[in-house]
Amino acid sequence: MRIAYIGPKQREAALQAFVSPGVTVEARPHGKGPRSIESMWEEYLSVPGMMEAVVELEEEGFDAIIPGCFGDPGIDGARELVSIPVLGPGATAMAVASNIGHRFSIVTVLENVIRPLENLALVSGYAPKLASVRQIGIPVLELNDNPDFTFARLTDVSRDVVEHDRADVLILGCGTLSFRAAELQEAVGVPVLNPLQVTLRMAELLVGCGLSHSKLSHPTPPKLAAAVMN
Amino acid sequence: MRIAYIGPKQREAALQAFVSPGVTVEARPHGKGPRSIESMWEEYLSVPGMMEAVVELEEEGFDAIIPGCFGDPGIDGARELVSIPVLGPGATAMAVASNIGHRFSIVTVLENVIRPLENLALVSGYAPKLASVRQIGIPVLELNDNPDFTFARLTDVSRDVVEHDRADVLILGCGTLSFRAAELQEAVGVPVLNPLQVTLRMAELLVGCGLSHSKLSHPTPPKLAAAVMN
Amino acid sequence: MRIAYIGPKQREAALQAFVSPGVTVEARPHGKGPRSIESMWEEYLSVPGMMEAVVELEEEGFDAIIPGCFGDPGIDGARELVSIPVLGPGATAMAVASNIGHRFSIVTVLENVIRPLENLALVSGYAPKLASVRQIGIPVLELNDNPDFTFARLTDVSRDVVEHDRADVLILGCGTLSFRAAELQEAVGVPVLNPLQVTLRMAELLVGCGLSHSKLSHPTPPKLAAAVMN
Amino acid sequence: MRIAYIGPKQREAALQAFVSPGVTVEARPHGKGPRSIESMWEEYLSVPGMMEAVVELEEEGFDAIIPGCFGDPGIDGARELVSIPVLGPGATAMAVASNIGHRFSIVTVLENVIRPLENLALVSGYAPKLASVRQIGIPVLELNDNPDFTFARLTDVSRDVVEHDRADVLILGCGTLSFRAAELQEAVGVPVLNPLQVTLRMAELLVGCGLSHSKLSHPTPPKLAAAVMN
Amino acid sequence: MRIAYIGPKQREAALQAFVSPGVTVEARPHGKGPRSIESMWEEYLSVPGMMEAVVELEEEGFDAIIPGCFGDPGIDGARELVSIPVLGPGATAMAVASNIGHRFSIVTVLENVIRPLENLALVSGYAPKLASVRQIGIPVLELNDNPDFTFARLTDVSRDVVEHDRADVLILGCGTLSFRAAELQEAVGVPVLNPLQVTLRMAELLVGCGLSHSKLSHPTPPKLAAAVMN
Amino acid sequence: MRIAYIGPKQREAALQAFVSPGVTVEARPHGKGPRSIESMWEEYLSVPGMMEAVVELEEEGFDAIIPGCFGDPGIDGARELVSIPVLGPGATAMAVASNIGHRFSIVTVLENVIRPLENLALVSGYAPKLASVRQIGIPVLELNDNPDFTFARLTDVSRDVVEHDRADVLILGCGTLSFRAAELQEAVGVPVLNPLQVTLRMAELLVGCGLSHSKLSHPTPPKLAAAVMN
Repeated sequence: MRIAYIGPKQREAALQAFVSPGVTVEARPHGKGPRSIESMWEEYLSVPGMMEAVVELEEEGFDAIIPGCFGDPGIDGARELVSIPVLGPGATAMAVASNIGHRFSIVTVLENVIRPLENLALVSGYAPKLASVRQIGIPVLELNDNPDFTFARLTDVSRDVVEHDRADVLILGCGTLSFRAAELQEAVGVPVLNPLQVTLRMAELLVGCGLSHSKLSHPTPPKLAAAVMN
Repeated sequence: MRIAYIGPKQREAALQAFVSPGVTVEARPHGKGPRSIESMWEEYLSVPGMMEAVVELEEEGFDAIIPGCFGDPGIDGARELVSIPVLGPGATAMAVASNIGHRFSIVTVLENVIRPLENLALVSGYAPKLASVRQIGIPVLELNDNPDFTFARLTDVSRDVVEHDRADVLILGCGTLSFRAAELQEAVGVPVLNPLQVTLRMAELLVGCGLSHSKLSHPTPPKLAAAVMN
Repeated sequence: MRIAYIGPKQREAALQAFVSPGVTVEARPHGKGPRSIESMWEEYLSVPGMMEAVVELEEEGFDAIIPGCFGDPGIDGARELVSIPVLGPGATAMAVASNIGHRFSIVTVLENVIRPLENLALVSGYAPKLASVRQIGIPVLELNDNPDFTFARLTDVSRDVVEHDRADVLILGCGTLSFRAAELQEAVGVPVLNPLQVTLRMAELLVGCGLSHSKLSHPTPPKLAAAVMN
Repeated sequence: MRIAYIGPKQREAALQAFVSPGVTVEARPHGKGPRSIESMWEEYLSVPGMMEAVVELEEEGFDAIIPGCFGDPGIDGARELVSIPVLGPGATAMAVASNIGHRFSIVTVLENVIRPLENLALVSGYAPKLASVRQIGIPVLELNDNPDFTFARLTDVSRDVVEHDRADVLILGCGTLSFRAAELQEAVGVPVLNPLQVTLRMAELLVGCGLSHSKLSHPTPPKLAAAVMN
Repeated sequence: MRIAYIGPKQREAALQAFVSPGVTVEARPHGKGPRSIESMWEEYLSVPGMMEAVVELEEEGFDAIIPGCFGDPGIDGARELVSIPVLGPGATAMAVASNIGHRFSIVTVLENVIRPLENLALVSGYAPKLASVRQIGIPVLELNDNPDFTFARLTDVSRDVVEHDRADVLILGCGTLSFRAAELQEAVGVPVLNPLQVTLRMAELLVGCGLSHSKLSHPTPPKLAAAVMN
Repeated sequence: MRIAYIGPKQREAALQAFVSPGVTVEARPHGKGPRSIESMWEEYLSVPGMMEAVVELEEEGFDAIIPGCFGDPGIDGARELVSIPVLGPGATAMAVASNIGHRFSIVTVLENVIRPLENLALVSGYAPKLASVRQIGIPVLELNDNPDFTFARLTDVSRDVVEHDRADVLILGCGTLSFRAAELQEAVGVPVLNPLQVTLRMAELLVGCGLSHSKLSHPTPPKLAAAVMN
């Protein structure tokens, strides 16, 4: 089984460590979007390149595709173009979090993405279980400048979320943050989801069960369907 | 007052007829998207060009901007980039429909856009009043091939929606269809909203009241904010 | 276009300043209700007089009617009696607030009206976007005793609402308060809706678009319909 | 224990048969409203007289009050004026129906009251259990013209509601209809609530438990509170 | 009328004091569950014995049955086995609380039962009116060790709930706590429901009105139905 | 990795075929419940034995446990007793279905389990995506009497659900039915989830990611926690 991750090449080894034996992850940045995504503006800019990539990756024979951005921009567009599973880390992590607790919170980078993530939860159907979306106040590109400070902020905000928002499961709401999940779970004592790891495993689950997104909810665009028929 | 409509130039005269005395509408197609929008794929392809256009139109001195697609693709991205009101015809028509009836339905072109419009209602907050989204089964580019047939389909579906989905207000869910609103209201006997007309007037309302979208919910992207500060 | 405002004559000039050129506002108090409305008891007392007035105002040839109380008492009753638009400032302001932000709060006078306004949001369909209803603790008839103190309270509560309830749009939930909207928007930095101004402009919008409330959701009472037929 | 029923004197004996030994029901029409209530217009017209009556009835020493109209017009206003329980038959029947089934439907007289009853369910908090509101198409004042026809219509609509709306409990949504509940329960085979009977017994329950509506949610109007303090 | 309470014999006299003249309450512990219920584990352990008891109690000729645990474990199972009303104190208290205020809170013993009670409110349909579930931090079996301390904690938490969660009606969420309702209502000034008392009276209401739970929503299990037919 | 399935031994080989290489499934019936589960009565009877089994299976060193009944009876009780993942097939299948479509339906055996499954969706947080629960009208123990007839019923009901309830993903809502998922997906053309297969793979996902249910939402019962501390 081969899973394509649309995101930075340097993450490939770390992602490979997350999957089952016999599964290969390839990181395939599409190279046409912004350097980091911290606004809806950047989300939308990243989508056309991602949609093109998705078509090529299916043609190359991948079994599933994971566009890397946690906000899941353009997933519904990409799903219209291919038959293999396309999974967003945001909605996928929420699906799993809903299944192991009563209320989950998302801990993310900046105020700017809070409202979009609340909307993602609503549209994905997970809002009944969402306790809160909270930020640590550090931009994506500065998260690795001082990893200890970043982790201290993560821990503080996570504890606050557990106590005051009554969350009992946490999701790290950003690709870069996601690699701190195991540490944070240790520190805070509630399940902490690494959305990339969870999404890679969900891709395995779907492929292993012979499932993909529904072509009824994500139909081939009429113009493409017509082109195929001609 | 000058309102920019991002859409086909040939609609300009018709739109001009919808606004108050002293208001000018200019149709300004951005020319970078698909010919028509009948899928999420096409919605996303249209957004980067629309977002660029929005910035230029604000610089040119427009007072408000209406990206023409009924599905409101990219509105939240565009709002991050400018201070003047950017209004989506879909959410705006739903806001007005909610205020004049108990339950509204959207009558649109094809099955493909039903689910996206249900999501738009959910994310915009109007889902409690949404009775249904229904299609007439005619693609956008064929709507004007046989206007009588199109109107007959509109009338049939609208009556069905009133009777079986218990809608008491209708919205025409497509820019091309929107020009049939007055006729359809006459035929069916319930209020029928032309989303373009309603959205132009809502733009007047906001400008007249000194209002725009909140910069707290649609904040300037951090990278642009930083650029401005340097 | 002539719009009737059912409320104090002394507001007429201020309201006239809110509408478009060519539109006339006339304040027409019905004189049969309580001096101010700060309870459901008073809301109900005000309705029979308002309903009578609505019928007369339609006969006099007005194009739209705005009963002045923010809690929208009796709007659904009044709508059954006439064909021209009858608009409540509460629901109308919520419709517009929903369309320009992610979450809105209502800042009003006293504890007593908080629960009724929460119910108004629920029944009007805007509850998904309602962040909170909050009071400044000053009765309606004392709001103008010390305008500076009133404004200071407004500002304090509004800032608190933005920070703690995460509202990004505010509505002033009382006719008397509504005239402070522009100042407050300046002070707090988020859109602040003057419900009377917004509702006057919404009346213009509806009349301009040939729309009114649905007679399917607000049908003529059977006894009146029978009387007409005899 | 003495319970006042605000409604037609001729129902007194029938209502007396519904209560426990030792409880007295007195029918006390206020005589200031419309002959029957089939619209929001008539609901509002009935409220001022009912609110006056409520104050007098408390002074006379009644233990609880039941305004008779199923749509519960003005209950929240009346509750502000007295300390003894004031119970609406609509919301009370919904409270009990919620507790004995999974989904309930209301069977009522005319299309006109469907939307108001849906709103009552929403505002009273019982909407999650409401399957539907349906009408038999007979005006209130004609219900007793042909009792067999009325009962046949009731039975037909009730069976339809059970089969197609998946209701498993029914409420008769009109005072006049309510007396057919026992027969209808026999005929249809699901619990059928007589709202007047249920509400009389709920009044007994509240009085017996030393409970009434909360003065925090239904506070004394500020002007009356001030008058008392002077 | 005879009502069976499935719970400790020593409560019988206190419960008898809660019912109407002519009604008998018998406490009938089934003796097969845990000593107290403070977890879902214990809730489930208590159910098989309770379900057996329910069948026997119906055969003995009781008119209604109240399994004593506030969390309502197994009520839907028990209802499938008998025709007479089986009422859970949790859902029944919520039904009544919904009908006398705008928002209710449940004050209970320990953190462990908060989430289960939130789920009970959701599944019973009362979630729209639930303000919060809060704990006093004292295990069931220690509630009577120091009654003054228990009452002080109850009062503190109740006041906090009224102020910060905006509850205007309270429910005591535990059988042992329930006997402090009258005192607490006096101390806090909002209605406080004793769930056992309210449920006994609701049993009277249902029996008095000829009502029980719906056999459509709680059907006889197919194997038992088949056994009866053979 | 070893996963315990609490259910019939004869399913073991079929289940083993569903998991990844290196994973072992052992079927471990607890032998203390009813022969099949078609009512809430039988659900509750099965729980105490299942909870005992869960504790033993954790002690035996299993990595995850799947109680086999689709209705997920007692999962929250079992989770309080162990640290390893305990997964219900019902909620788990809903979590996955939510992530690959817009609306899912559950196709199950008999009317009796429809309401319980609607409640499971509500309490698990997946109700926003639930289109419907529908039955084929064949009892569990007769499903294999005439496999062709069973499949024909499954196909008919599934097509009906897709067309009339607008479902785009299906879940087979019964352990015995679940083995027909692949065939049915082929026949109907939308994703069909085998809940046992999906849940086995979700168990792998959780174990592989170092995740389990939250001990904050499913805390150790106070009496057991106290016993451990002594």
